[in-house]
Amino acid sequence: MILMTSEVIQKATAAQKAAAAMNRLTTAQKNNALETMADALLAHSDDIIAANAEDLSRGKEQGTSPSLLDRLALNHERIAGIAEGLRQIVQLQDPVGATIQSFTRPNGLKVEQIAVPIGVIGIIYEARPNVTVDAAGLCLKTGNCVVLRGGSAALSSNAKIVEVLRNSLKTTDMPPDAIQLIEDSDRASVNEMLRLNGLLDVIIPRGGAALIQNVVQNATVPVIETGAGICHVFVDESANPAMASSIAYNAKMQRPSVCNSMETLLVHVAFARNGGLEELLAPMVKADAELRISGVTSGELANARKATDEDFATEYNDYILNVKIVSGLDEALEHIAAFGTKHSECIVTENADNAERFLQEVDAAAVYHNASTRFTDGFEFGYGAEIGISTQKLHARGPMGLPSLTSTKYRIYGNGQIRG
Amino acid sequence: MILMTSEVIQKATAAQKAAAAMNRLTTAQKNNALETMADALLAHSDDIIAANAEDLSRGKEQGTSPSLLDRLALNHERIAGIAEGLRQIVQLQDPVGATIQSFTRPNGLKVEQIAVPIGVIGIIYEARPNVTVDAAGLCLKTGNCVVLRGGSAALSSNAKIVEVLRNSLKTTDMPPDAIQLIEDSDRASVNEMLRLNGLLDVIIPRGGAALIQNVVQNATVPVIETGAGICHVFVDESANPAMASSIAYNAKMQRPSVCNSMETLLVHVAFARNGGLEELLAPMVKADAELRISGVTSGELANARKATDEDFATEYNDYILNVKIVSGLDEALEHIAAFGTKHSECIVTENADNAERFLQEVDAAAVYHNASTRFTDGFEFGYGAEIGISTQKLHARGPMGLPSLTSTKYRIYGNGQIRG
Repeated sequence: MILMTSEVIQKATAAQKAAAAMNRLTTAQKNNALETMADALLAHSDDIIAANAEDLSRGKEQGTSPSLLDRLALNHERIAGIAEGLRQIVQLQDPVGATIQSFTRPNGLKVEQIAVPIGVIGIIYEARPNVTVDAAGLCLKTGNCVVLRGGSAALSSNAKIVEVLRNSLKTTDMPPDAIQLIEDSDRASVNEMLRLNGLLDVIIPRGGAALIQNVVQNATVPVIETGAGICHVFVDESANPAMASSIAYNAKMQRPSVCNSMETLLVHVAFARNGGLEELLAPMVKADAELRISGVTSGELANARKATDEDFATEYNDYILNVKIVSGLDEALEHIAAFGTKHSECIVTENADNAERFLQEVDAAAVYHNASTRFTDGFEFGYGAEIGISTQKLHARGPMGLPSLTSTKYRIYGNGQIRG
Repeated sequence: MILMTSEVIQKATAAQKAAAAMNRLTTAQKNNALETMADALLAHSDDIIAANAEDLSRGKEQGTSPSLLDRLALNHERIAGIAEGLRQIVQLQDPVGATIQSFTRPNGLKVEQIAVPIGVIGIIYEARPNVTVDAAGLCLKTGNCVVLRGGSAALSSNAKIVEVLRNSLKTTDMPPDAIQLIEDSDRASVNEMLRLNGLLDVIIPRGGAALIQNVVQNATVPVIETGAGICHVFVDESANPAMASSIAYNAKMQRPSVCNSMETLLVHVAFARNGGLEELLAPMVKADAELRISGVTSGELANARKATDEDFATEYNDYILNVKIVSGLDEALEHIAAFGTKHSECIVTENADNAERFLQEVDAAAVYHNASTRFTDGFEFGYGAEIGISTQKLHARGPMGLPSLTSTKYRIYGNGQIRG
């Protein structure tokens, strides 16, 4: 009898079997493996670039956009950057083994709660081959095994990269089976991963809204959702005008394609009066941002395109900004509660009470007083690396550093205690 | 136009609207509400007992078993116990508002990570009306709103209890809408809850394996799985015989119906020899435990019923025990990896190296050296209360105290910082 087992089950099973060996590795052994992987990427750059050329050629034939092709493309410089990323992960503190808490019970039982690897982590992502190495590096550093499922547009690149990484591990104490790549480009392989309870401990999607929603809607394996960001800046009556303008410009214009950029600017009506609004928006207008306005009834901006509820619910990821004049803090809080995605929200104010109310009452992963929403980022928080920014409330919320890739375990030491 | 909205959506929406007000409550306000709820339960005991009588009468008509009817039954003493449970929750430390970490970045941004309520918690459970009050109390103490969906067999009791609790809150600062009970006893209402992303932040199932698997398999809302326990005790070669026998007896017999009781006893072959096995099992044999044996080839026990792989994969929750003779620690670890549910596992040994290897390598929420698995419990760990015992690796693992019902939030204080 021949048992047919899918690629997904075979590889997830192999990863799970490697988990115990991963759990036994010391930090030095894990770091050595990461360094070896970085060396191997550099040594095999030409092979990786050749495989990448296949992806690029296929992409061009299929009419892939130049910007997507650019994200897909690898060259010696980019591979050197990817290898350097691994070496940076080596420098990070290993969270595994840390004691979370420790206490002795009246019956003499000594209880320790320690950080342990999660086990096997599934990563589902799109056509950026750098994610292959970056995600693997973060998972392996924390003693986890990883099952990667990248976008089919980068399949040749990913297959070569993973081959290089796995081969390099043969000279280290880390089991090559700790890294698995699903090469089946059929969407069914994604859906199979999503329901692999017992083999995968968690799935982390990295990509656009459609990819994330597919994972959230269909997974039975626990998911860490790294979701959309409709972020707001509220400019209060007492805001310092220069600071408000600078923060608003930075939050919208510095890199609009990312989840922590601002989509809607809320302006206190008293701040907006007497040219305050025009002054606030002037740098963005000068930079040709497209404005969609609500609540302005006079002046030049009254003729701008009107913002609709649909606009307020849209993550533009572009040089487009909704502007809404609000009667005060209460209306700003209501708008954020109605349209925010609980990612990053900011108040610009010189009023300490209003700042405190905003930071207390807004339900979001990161709430800012007088600073740009763009700082919601693992590197900016000093975590040195980032798996993503969690927009759910379980396990991890906001920028996820290495500790987000660990679970815990209770170790209990007794001398014969039984329960009465 | 009349919009038809289901009971589930209406009540979850009402809970979500109450979340901001819950988040603003002080610990004193929350404790006062819990005390008021406890007083109200006592004051309305007769009404609750009358409603409970309806459930009991319906249950008898439907042929419900006496043991289930006993779990469902309420009387003055049990209601007093339930009310006392609420007062015990009052005594517990409030985890909300605690600073998890705090640091200042080189650019002057001050970052604080603080514990906050999760938001709206869905609890799906079976026919024990005490869970209605217990789960509500734990959720409210941590500033969360709760949407309860209990078993239909307890519907009249639950409806009356929730009516009493909600009414009692009208004299407090806590919004009555923080407690919601889904009264629609159709299974469709459970499935609707499971997919209520955006209104429910997490679902915690409390009940048997079928209930939990339905939740895990169908939920798109994040779940905290409180799963099955197939727990093992491994008696090593060097184990103290009296201690081994005492721990094994306690782990199996003290309360076999619960998830942290032992299902399989693994015995080192050298310990088992020369009557060691018979001595180890004697107290259980005397107490009429049913034994299913593997690996015994001589003596009286060789004639006992043989344990199969199916037995090893069964959570009996009964006075039935699998016994397997193993060649040593390696085989014990392999057996646990193959059949364990990552709940609670124990080694009895005087060999410190073996103990360390067991505690390091066994992948479970709680690993014990020389103590009964029965201690995996929120009260035994000193948490004072317990939402359940998590058998997943995300967010919480093992006994869940009040901090498991919190999320976190970053508060960032700047003076005009923008990202470069």
